[in-house]
Amino acid sequence: MTTRKDLLDIESLSREEIEHLLDQAGPFKELFTRSVKKVPALKGKSVLTLFYEPSTRTLSSFEVAAKRLSADVTTFDVPHSSVVKGESVKDTIDTLQSMRTDYIIVRNSMSGLPLVIARETKASVINAGDGAHAHPTQALLDGFTFREVFPEMQRKKILIVGDILHSRVARSTSTLMRKLGVEVAWLGPGSLVPKHGPRDIKRFTNYDEAMQWGPDVVYLLRIQMERQSAPYFPSLREYTKLYGVTPERFKRLEDQGTYIMHPGPVNRGVELCDAVMDYQRCLINQQVENGIAARMAVLYWLKPESDQ
Amino acid sequence: MTTRKDLLDIESLSREEIEHLLDQAGPFKELFTRSVKKVPALKGKSVLTLFYEPSTRTLSSFEVAAKRLSADVTTFDVPHSSVVKGESVKDTIDTLQSMRTDYIIVRNSMSGLPLVIARETKASVINAGDGAHAHPTQALLDGFTFREVFPEMQRKKILIVGDILHSRVARSTSTLMRKLGVEVAWLGPGSLVPKHGPRDIKRFTNYDEAMQWGPDVVYLLRIQMERQSAPYFPSLREYTKLYGVTPERFKRLEDQGTYIMHPGPVNRGVELCDAVMDYQRCLINQQVENGIAARMAVLYWLKPESDQ
Amino acid sequence: MTTRKDLLDIESLSREEIEHLLDQAGPFKELFTRSVKKVPALKGKSVLTLFYEPSTRTLSSFEVAAKRLSADVTTFDVPHSSVVKGESVKDTIDTLQSMRTDYIIVRNSMSGLPLVIARETKASVINAGDGAHAHPTQALLDGFTFREVFPEMQRKKILIVGDILHSRVARSTSTLMRKLGVEVAWLGPGSLVPKHGPRDIKRFTNYDEAMQWGPDVVYLLRIQMERQSAPYFPSLREYTKLYGVTPERFKRLEDQGTYIMHPGPVNRGVELCDAVMDYQRCLINQQVENGIAARMAVLYWLKPESDQ
Repeated sequence: MTTRKDLLDIESLSREEIEHLLDQAGPFKELFTRSVKKVPALKGKSVLTLFYEPSTRTLSSFEVAAKRLSADVTTFDVPHSSVVKGESVKDTIDTLQSMRTDYIIVRNSMSGLPLVIARETKASVINAGDGAHAHPTQALLDGFTFREVFPEMQRKKILIVGDILHSRVARSTSTLMRKLGVEVAWLGPGSLVPKHGPRDIKRFTNYDEAMQWGPDVVYLLRIQMERQSAPYFPSLREYTKLYGVTPERFKRLEDQGTYIMHPGPVNRGVELCDAVMDYQRCLINQQVENGIAARMAVLYWLKPESDQ
Repeated sequence: MTTRKDLLDIESLSREEIEHLLDQAGPFKELFTRSVKKVPALKGKSVLTLFYEPSTRTLSSFEVAAKRLSADVTTFDVPHSSVVKGESVKDTIDTLQSMRTDYIIVRNSMSGLPLVIARETKASVINAGDGAHAHPTQALLDGFTFREVFPEMQRKKILIVGDILHSRVARSTSTLMRKLGVEVAWLGPGSLVPKHGPRDIKRFTNYDEAMQWGPDVVYLLRIQMERQSAPYFPSLREYTKLYGVTPERFKRLEDQGTYIMHPGPVNRGVELCDAVMDYQRCLINQQVENGIAARMAVLYWLKPESDQ
Repeated sequence: MTTRKDLLDIESLSREEIEHLLDQAGPFKELFTRSVKKVPALKGKSVLTLFYEPSTRTLSSFEVAAKRLSADVTTFDVPHSSVVKGESVKDTIDTLQSMRTDYIIVRNSMSGLPLVIARETKASVINAGDGAHAHPTQALLDGFTFREVFPEMQRKKILIVGDILHSRVARSTSTLMRKLGVEVAWLGPGSLVPKHGPRDIKRFTNYDEAMQWGPDVVYLLRIQMERQSAPYFPSLREYTKLYGVTPERFKRLEDQGTYIMHPGPVNRGVELCDAVMDYQRCLINQQVENGIAARMAVLYWLKPESDQ
């Protein structure tokens, strides 16, 4: 297996590479359940976080992962300074390169920025979410969590529900699941389920029809409240009525033993009702925990150019 | 002495436990006055700070304390992300638990949140101030500072001045002082000095009467400027006239050799006049310094469930 | 050479001290180009950053420098807390002193604050920019960068362009260059080029005349957009026309092999045109990189009082 400098999306990873990352996340997770919370793997390395979009959960997850590998983490607090000063993205990248950091973790509302940074720096760039494009570490932690429940992933079924069209999570996680042999279906309003894209993905617009397909896991996407004003989007109440896991629907999922996933944070009462959170087959907290292990695996695997 | 997972208030600590913590803070303080600024006691442990109310001083104090014990500190920047995203407190707690952090330091305007978090996580939870309820590490640093001046605390007298009713500092520090045998009195506007509560605490509404009681230490609470609009609260000018340490009152305190304490930050010209800050028996800066040692003692003493 | 507690300005440094710092920055830079990113020189020491003015670049540069020396860095987040609470600067300083931090890095819009802090604390204070007064670490990194290009600095020529009068960079860098034997000239609108000050500095108000002087380096100051409303300041368009490195002027600079420097972040299209950024003799990114090495040298050199 070749080494890689950057992790920008799931599309460019081979099945072998994905499996290698999931295999690596395992021992990292085990380590800290045994109270070994720190390993010296990245001692002396520097990690810089560059979050144009705020996200405490993802940022903290990466921070904790990097610190557990003994790396030094510096927050490059973009929104409060350079944007104010009108600094161009290009010049920010040059600054980052000049600081000779080893890893750059970037989140942005603009698709493609991580790629631009990756091309122009020797640092390993990790895409922590860029616009509607990709969120590869989310996909990896989703895959890892799925595999914990179904060690044999082949032919298992995942149904992803929500605004598929604008979701980087849907995109990255669908791609990863398919690469690992999982059958993928999408459910959402017709205008928000892309018709183009892989043919082997089933498309549903009706909840009951989708459930008849028999998914092993229902993966609920987060409703982006700020998109509510968009003309193509149903009202919240309507969305919940059509696609939310209401108490009635939850009952049926429970009876069938279906697992629930969600990238968090959850809008209770919208994507799912309160009861789901205490459901034994709700994997949401497990996803958070696995996020740290998966991100440790990514940091451990990538090779900054300066090291090669 | 049993070990404890959490520090939520002073009420649940025994006198023996309080004295143990003060005894432990001593060598920690001594260490860093001898330029030994770091000990490996919490190496590999992770500390997460969760401050819903901003407070640079308390946050920095905990951060420095944790780093001096070689722990890794991550800021979970709540106000700027999860609140915006409408994440419920319950889900934030689940997230924290899933991150398997060892210590959570929480400040909130809502009384009781630290308890809720403590119950639902294996991490050791330290209450860094919750509403009008409790601020136990403030009480411990106050007790430590008091004992530095009066090694024999028994029968010494402390007068706490201000809005007693709404003050978590008044509550926690009064409790701790009483447990260590210090006599406590409260001074403030009638509507802000609770009539219920321990009988052995003297209540005053008149400054001169309170001084005739003969306190060894006058502890001035911080006036919460944001509460000024409350109907029960006197105007700032009136407050200072009635209860502030004005230049005239300071003269008398100086003559009597009375010590001054304050949890900081001070509103100069309100709770006290400028001259107090340079007074030899003003212990305010000593309190700040002792805050780090006291917090190191707390972190060192608590045992997260994962460790037991 | 005597040791120093603080770095407040360039004026108080001897030529010997400046050269010592530049000499020291060399091996630090070399270290991390060889992927040795961390040295234990300041292990166990604590660094506190106190930035009243936001500046991600300078703050990150100091943070990375301190972490590469293995120090612990805590951000004292002033604007969001103490200022809100109305804490006086004096009391903040007392708090810092009581926290027994070893190094304080301070940036403020008020000239002289670092000096006040330095006088009242045992910590080593580094001025990271105070009003229009001084920015000594910028001057040191500028000097280091200049010397990389011209190892023999004597009699080389630097032309500093912009609002000289209000620029702490112009002031500190001019002083440092003169101390190292470099000839300095200033170019800008008549009202913004001070007439007082060192006689050996040439003053120009016309671009072409300044270029006839034959500078080896043209150092463009950043236009402070927020000062645009000031009555003495030309419009942006006018400024660029008079003093900006437009494509035509760039062509001539390129022909003459003149080097370009700028403290960053650049306002593209104002101080300089896009093409300059890709120019082989543009030293702006080199300045950023050298900033870390220069700041490491400063931290390594200063001696907090507690250590002596």
